[in-house]
Amino acid sequence: MNQEQHFQSSEKVRDFVIGMSDGLTVPFALAAGLSGAVDSTSIVITAGLAEIAAGSIAMGLGGYLAGRTEIEHYNSEERREHDEVENKHEVEIQETKEIFAEYGLSDDLQEKIAREMAKNPKKWVDFMMRFELGLERPDKNRAHQSAFIIGISYVIGGIIPLTAYFFTDTTMQGLIYSTIITLICLVVFGLIKSKLTGQPLFKGAMRVTMVGAIAAAAAFAIAKAIA
Amino acid sequence: MNQEQHFQSSEKVRDFVIGMSDGLTVPFALAAGLSGAVDSTSIVITAGLAEIAAGSIAMGLGGYLAGRTEIEHYNSEERREHDEVENKHEVEIQETKEIFAEYGLSDDLQEKIAREMAKNPKKWVDFMMRFELGLERPDKNRAHQSAFIIGISYVIGGIIPLTAYFFTDTTMQGLIYSTIITLICLVVFGLIKSKLTGQPLFKGAMRVTMVGAIAAAAAFAIAKAIA
Repeated sequence: MNQEQHFQSSEKVRDFVIGMSDGLTVPFALAAGLSGAVDSTSIVITAGLAEIAAGSIAMGLGGYLAGRTEIEHYNSEERREHDEVENKHEVEIQETKEIFAEYGLSDDLQEKIAREMAKNPKKWVDFMMRFELGLERPDKNRAHQSAFIIGISYVIGGIIPLTAYFFTDTTMQGLIYSTIITLICLVVFGLIKSKLTGQPLFKGAMRVTMVGAIAAAAAFAIAKAIA
Repeated sequence: MNQEQHFQSSEKVRDFVIGMSDGLTVPFALAAGLSGAVDSTSIVITAGLAEIAAGSIAMGLGGYLAGRTEIEHYNSEERREHDEVENKHEVEIQETKEIFAEYGLSDDLQEKIAREMAKNPKKWVDFMMRFELGLERPDKNRAHQSAFIIGISYVIGGIIPLTAYFFTDTTMQGLIYSTIITLICLVVFGLIKSKLTGQPLFKGAMRVTMVGAIAAAAAFAIAKAIA
């Protein structure tokens, strides 16, 4: 197998990328937006930290519960497939054949595959789960771990843009430093993300940075308009 | 095929659920957090709208770019597989056999499948994309549509909790009405989400509501502590 060539980002990396992408973007954009509307850095910091708490819990706990739901869904579908393999044997043989008919195998060979597969009901169910329903068996420990990584990445990503407001007197000064710091972080993070997920480096970095910049500009424009 | 029984939520529904879940949770929690720290409803509304702008763009545009990246990734892997089928024919035959070895098929049958599959290189590549790499061909129009649905759902979900602050004089009054309105919406949305995705109704609704409530409580506690 050429696993090295077909680079697949691990799920941990994916979780880190998910949390960090949004963490560097949304609290930064919110702080930028408020900087155009209020003149107290402490309000910007308070709002920023409240957003980080809310966002990290929504993403982390949300991710955890999504993982739990995925496990429950997989288990219930697996029970159904077991039941079908036992009680609707010929229907299931037909469904197995249909999977291979799609790839142009002869009826004779389809039949042979289905009959041989049927000799091992446990593996047959595994096969149907993956290839009929497109479901991978979820890792039971992943739900906890995923929640934790996404939540922590969001907090780290979110704190960075706020640090500028701790050390400046006015929100507009904070905005300038926050923007510089965050744009640099977005470019660096975008490069790392592109490298880890096997995308073209420059294009990937530009995409990540653009989302942060546009979100911040929109938040600033809206807050300025109504303040 | 028993597609009716194996309920698979459509991608549009999934996008709506993603946008609405976070939209009902994060701006609500941010507004709740600020209500404990500032006494101006207009600051809460400004921050809430800035968050909605930032969050909907981060999620919508982020979702759009993720979709684009997925298409590019699929196309590049597909080119690689085409190349392997042509230039590393026997390696690819071996990889095809390994897929079936995992499900306990005999070496003889593995060989027959791989050789027959190899007669139609285009379908063979399709097969390897799905069965070796686990990649489904992404729909080119999905990236736009997905971005739009997620972004709009986030805006709708986010506006609901803020409405309370438009009609109240103090942030604490706003917080009370906002909490009541949002908890009701979270329960109703949780029930709809559970129904659409085939989860147990009560459990699903409680999970959605719990994330919103915990996020809001955490944001409130943090904002109160530093204000």
